[in-house]
Amino acid sequence: MSKDIKQAALDYHAQPKPGKISVELSTSAATQHDLALAYSPGVAEPVKAIAENPVRAYDYTVKGNLVAVISNGTAILGLGDLGALASKPVMEGKALLFKRFAGIDSVDIEVDTKDPKAFIDAVALIANTFGGINLEDIKAPECFEIEDALIEQCDVPVFHDDQHGTAIVTAAGMLNALEIQGKTLEEAKIVCLGAGSAAVACMRLLRSLGAKKEHVTMIDRRGVIYSGREGLNEFKEEFAHDTSDRTLEDAINGADAFVGLSGANLLSPELLSTMAAKPVVFACSNPDPEIDPALANATRSDLIMATGRSDYPNQVNNVLGFPFIFRGALDVRASKINEEMKIAAVNAIRELAKQPVPQYVLDACGVDSLEFGAGYIIPKPMDSRLLGDVSAAVAQAAIDTDVARLPYPEHYPITSVDEL
Amino acid sequence: MSKDIKQAALDYHAQPKPGKISVELSTSAATQHDLALAYSPGVAEPVKAIAENPVRAYDYTVKGNLVAVISNGTAILGLGDLGALASKPVMEGKALLFKRFAGIDSVDIEVDTKDPKAFIDAVALIANTFGGINLEDIKAPECFEIEDALIEQCDVPVFHDDQHGTAIVTAAGMLNALEIQGKTLEEAKIVCLGAGSAAVACMRLLRSLGAKKEHVTMIDRRGVIYSGREGLNEFKEEFAHDTSDRTLEDAINGADAFVGLSGANLLSPELLSTMAAKPVVFACSNPDPEIDPALANATRSDLIMATGRSDYPNQVNNVLGFPFIFRGALDVRASKINEEMKIAAVNAIRELAKQPVPQYVLDACGVDSLEFGAGYIIPKPMDSRLLGDVSAAVAQAAIDTDVARLPYPEHYPITSVDEL
Repeated sequence: MSKDIKQAALDYHAQPKPGKISVELSTSAATQHDLALAYSPGVAEPVKAIAENPVRAYDYTVKGNLVAVISNGTAILGLGDLGALASKPVMEGKALLFKRFAGIDSVDIEVDTKDPKAFIDAVALIANTFGGINLEDIKAPECFEIEDALIEQCDVPVFHDDQHGTAIVTAAGMLNALEIQGKTLEEAKIVCLGAGSAAVACMRLLRSLGAKKEHVTMIDRRGVIYSGREGLNEFKEEFAHDTSDRTLEDAINGADAFVGLSGANLLSPELLSTMAAKPVVFACSNPDPEIDPALANATRSDLIMATGRSDYPNQVNNVLGFPFIFRGALDVRASKINEEMKIAAVNAIRELAKQPVPQYVLDACGVDSLEFGAGYIIPKPMDSRLLGDVSAAVAQAAIDTDVARLPYPEHYPITSVDEL
Repeated sequence: MSKDIKQAALDYHAQPKPGKISVELSTSAATQHDLALAYSPGVAEPVKAIAENPVRAYDYTVKGNLVAVISNGTAILGLGDLGALASKPVMEGKALLFKRFAGIDSVDIEVDTKDPKAFIDAVALIANTFGGINLEDIKAPECFEIEDALIEQCDVPVFHDDQHGTAIVTAAGMLNALEIQGKTLEEAKIVCLGAGSAAVACMRLLRSLGAKKEHVTMIDRRGVIYSGREGLNEFKEEFAHDTSDRTLEDAINGADAFVGLSGANLLSPELLSTMAAKPVVFACSNPDPEIDPALANATRSDLIMATGRSDYPNQVNNVLGFPFIFRGALDVRASKINEEMKIAAVNAIRELAKQPVPQYVLDACGVDSLEFGAGYIIPKPMDSRLLGDVSAAVAQAAIDTDVARLPYPEHYPITSVDEL
């Protein structure tokens, strides 16, 4: 970023007042009478109702529309472990996105510990305050233990977005890209550069969608993760297979797809040249991708390319997923966000990219046209149709898999957050 | 409450949507450019700034205007231990009051444990998310241990409002009432019926303001707390003194003041008759006071009476205190709310009751006139001058006692929450 942009970002966070979210009244509190209902003595009534039947908390408090964004700051963006408090602008930003895109009331909580047990205990004790929990920017491998334990202990959905949000959006884009290239996930040889939480979740989801174990090669800082490599943790072990490949250079040779969740410029044009015909390259490192899109396209014309950046086509952006996944889960009071709901989100995102794009969406996205193909494999973040399509698909999947505690919402399809 | 009022309270909490607060954007997030500043990549700048210097969290996040209202639901209103989730409407209500009266962004957190250690650990880990912590509806004696530990462990003000808010407002009213009756706190014989968290805090504060230990008699369910009584916990022990009084009947005979924080109708007209000339009766049990004000006034015409109810004169209402105490503390980034700040709040509330009441305040309170005297010893909750007066006094006291981390705010005096 330029110095001007950096200063603009600081100014944006400081003005008109510090921070990006505020808490407001959603009811009238003008008069003494209002206050007698909102607080003492009237508030005793919803208290007693909830004490009798806890589910009434959804009727009389904001719980059912409230998501906590929770981090310990151990893996903030690409910046690493900068501490819990330093993660607060990101978590507030996530809360802002929840409201902006899906009308979800969201607050951030920074938990000041690197100890998974202490983190789990604290979050489990406060979890019932919320209708759902979005874990964020927690480093691997602790994030896996933390998420598993909280899913087990909490009665509301717990979702580590760095894992599953990334995986869902990546999978949607990847399936569309492979389709356009005339390939299938079952046959595709996939190389994943990076072995952190997002990489593990992306490859898990691609495998659950049909990718073959022996076709998926994951590469960490020490090289290819292969069967028998010493010192693999259980999460990397999951991706170890028999192969003679030891380096990125070995693995990428003849590969159909590359998923980069690693670092800037790690994919050279020379390596890109060795990929199979009609390759797919997701260079998702932020802010600088594994290979610059202009360079990649200059190297091969048969390429489909996606990045994490908004200034290139095919942005793999989690905001295509998490607001609507939680919207759907909240709207049917799902007890969890299960695999079927994630796959429903993948399919809804995929499908939307294949639909004709109406003028109001083009206007919102600031483009003249969008047509399904190499330059448009995935919807754009400003596409307001995501709210209705993805939320409805997730809600339906929750119902179909018996984790919903409400029927399909009468107010569906939602066409705008203003309706919520 | 009548059945109609009960239903109105439930409806109020359910409509237009469940709950009383919402989270809103305090910045623009309309365009892709906005989002690039609010989230990736722009958000990296405030993250790095806070990592370098944690105090920058006050510049770039809502932390400095954010108070958590935290409970475990073990002493909800007068209803007792109904569990953490059932306390949520009360905590949301408190968040609403913070915003309504002092422009403070506030969120509720329900901590689902009765174990003080687990509660303390969880809250200490998340405390830095906020600029201050308001503890609420936690039963005695655990509340004392919890508050002490959190004050010790947290870098932001921690304030158990059931204790200190009640004590501050009670002390302000009591000092004014005694003054009107021509008595002093130093000489007054005071009986406190109730020995829970509010009672302990009220009597502690009255003693720190000048009441004599041997003049303050506290009474619990087993009778008068006297020196040598078996089984007293350390908090009750603090109030034990040498006395032959064993019952309320013994203690109230000749007393100047009665503070009821106990239960409905425990003060009979017969007992009231035995109090000293010109007595002061604070019958604060809610919703039904220790003695009905009409009955009390019919029993003695030399009485000054206060209750917790809005439909009688002299309402002892915590909302006269906590919003402005936190406002003052936040505005100078106080590290704690110390005794001097509490006493500054007492004096500011006292003083305001002695001031002429302007027409706009009369209008807001729905009354024709208010004049300092037996029927008006304490400001009314709808008196918007509290914001400026109490906040400024608390902020100045923080500065004077070196717990402030900012100078006296330039934007003082505040005259309306709209300025915040």
